[in-house]
Amino acid sequence: MRWCRIRLDGRATYALIEGAEVVEVEGSPFTEYQLTARRHPLSEIRLLLPVEPKCMYAMGANFASHVDWVGGSHGVEVSLPDDVQVGHRSPAALIGPDESIVIPPDAPGPLEAEGELVVVIGRPGRAIPREDAPGHVLGYTLGNDLGDRGWQKTDRTNWRWKNSDTFKPLGPAIAMDIDPLEQEIVVRVNGEVASRYETEGMVFDVATIISRLSQYVTLGAGDLIWLGSGAATQPSLRPGDVVSVECVSIGVLRNTVSIP
Amino acid sequence: MRWCRIRLDGRATYALIEGAEVVEVEGSPFTEYQLTARRHPLSEIRLLLPVEPKCMYAMGANFASHVDWVGGSHGVEVSLPDDVQVGHRSPAALIGPDESIVIPPDAPGPLEAEGELVVVIGRPGRAIPREDAPGHVLGYTLGNDLGDRGWQKTDRTNWRWKNSDTFKPLGPAIAMDIDPLEQEIVVRVNGEVASRYETEGMVFDVATIISRLSQYVTLGAGDLIWLGSGAATQPSLRPGDVVSVECVSIGVLRNTVSIP
Repeated sequence: MRWCRIRLDGRATYALIEGAEVVEVEGSPFTEYQLTARRHPLSEIRLLLPVEPKCMYAMGANFASHVDWVGGSHGVEVSLPDDVQVGHRSPAALIGPDESIVIPPDAPGPLEAEGELVVVIGRPGRAIPREDAPGHVLGYTLGNDLGDRGWQKTDRTNWRWKNSDTFKPLGPAIAMDIDPLEQEIVVRVNGEVASRYETEGMVFDVATIISRLSQYVTLGAGDLIWLGSGAATQPSLRPGDVVSVECVSIGVLRNTVSIP
Repeated sequence: MRWCRIRLDGRATYALIEGAEVVEVEGSPFTEYQLTARRHPLSEIRLLLPVEPKCMYAMGANFASHVDWVGGSHGVEVSLPDDVQVGHRSPAALIGPDESIVIPPDAPGPLEAEGELVVVIGRPGRAIPREDAPGHVLGYTLGNDLGDRGWQKTDRTNWRWKNSDTFKPLGPAIAMDIDPLEQEIVVRVNGEVASRYETEGMVFDVATIISRLSQYVTLGAGDLIWLGSGAATQPSLRPGDVVSVECVSIGVLRNTVSIP
């Protein structure tokens, strides 16, 4: 079962994807909901950002393969943490499927794509025991955790290199009942595979992350946790490129890169 | 003129403070509003968080005096940046006047208070020219940018040392038409003055901050920019302490420190 958000008559509404159709829903996956009889062909519908989170957290280094690559190719010293550590991602930077990634005029580059699985919190909680964590997950979507590696070296925090406007594409849908350790994440640039990895290489699993994070921070319905990239290579993007993050259980998150 | 938010009949509503009274308002300072005839004695009203921002940004090092103190007392290497640099602060960590600051059981400490002026954005904008910046400001409130200095040394980002639940007291009111460079900010612990500074020592002024920040990040109505502390000393807090951040033009933001 997959959730999406669509715009109909100027209004954002939740819907379920069933085969080649979407079925409108009254309510939302975070509250009560009822299916309606209103169906639309998926091909004719524009999908929106699937959720509007209050807070987003990201696992910076959650795959050994990625940490090795960043150290080797960028000379950025990163190691695997011995406990869950997250960084903030800004809701203001989110864009949905098919929206444009806009490179700021003075960005030094390279701007790099990172395809990631993203946990959508369904039920709020604080100090959640590890065994209860699955009950707080609504499902999983895809994110492109774009970053400007030039700014990474000069900025004091991640406010700009990771969180400039449009740097956080998210979508296209929220898949329920999938195993976050059994997914393959593929990133394509202009149709060519740029990176591919299996999520089973994750250092901290979702239950551990939710439990540790929530010892300090109340998780809200709709909040997102980006699980990190396991890619051992990472493509640089240029204006005109079409970049997609893909997972067969979730869908294809496709965005075009542009300049202002 | 000062705005506040109050709870009446279980509903949060905006109000204006007039002398010893608050006057209920229909609408909000971010939209249209009208004064009502409903007045209440300020002393009988519980003030809420004055705004619920989508995003919060903070100037980490915006006063030479504070940077010198942090370096000397904590051995944390900080220098003044040559351009505007911000860090994220989490809306999930906000508490209002008189709410409790709760120290997590495993926090290494010391937990330190930082009294700051906080800009409230009134009108959204992107790539705002410096000369237009004042038109995007609604007013100013007070924040206590609490941080656990132990976690600062071990955490990779500010997610926990600056942004654990309850670590961001804010309020009590939003003052319009004040000069952010002509305020005195006083922090008291249990009634005793713990730090005191003049805001005129700010390195980057509000217009510069808004202009530079908005080149990369769209500012929304209600978003907040914490202007940094100019205190040359900073008090450590213990359970039971009452900490207040005070500015004569804005009011007194008072919170009690507790353990879970």
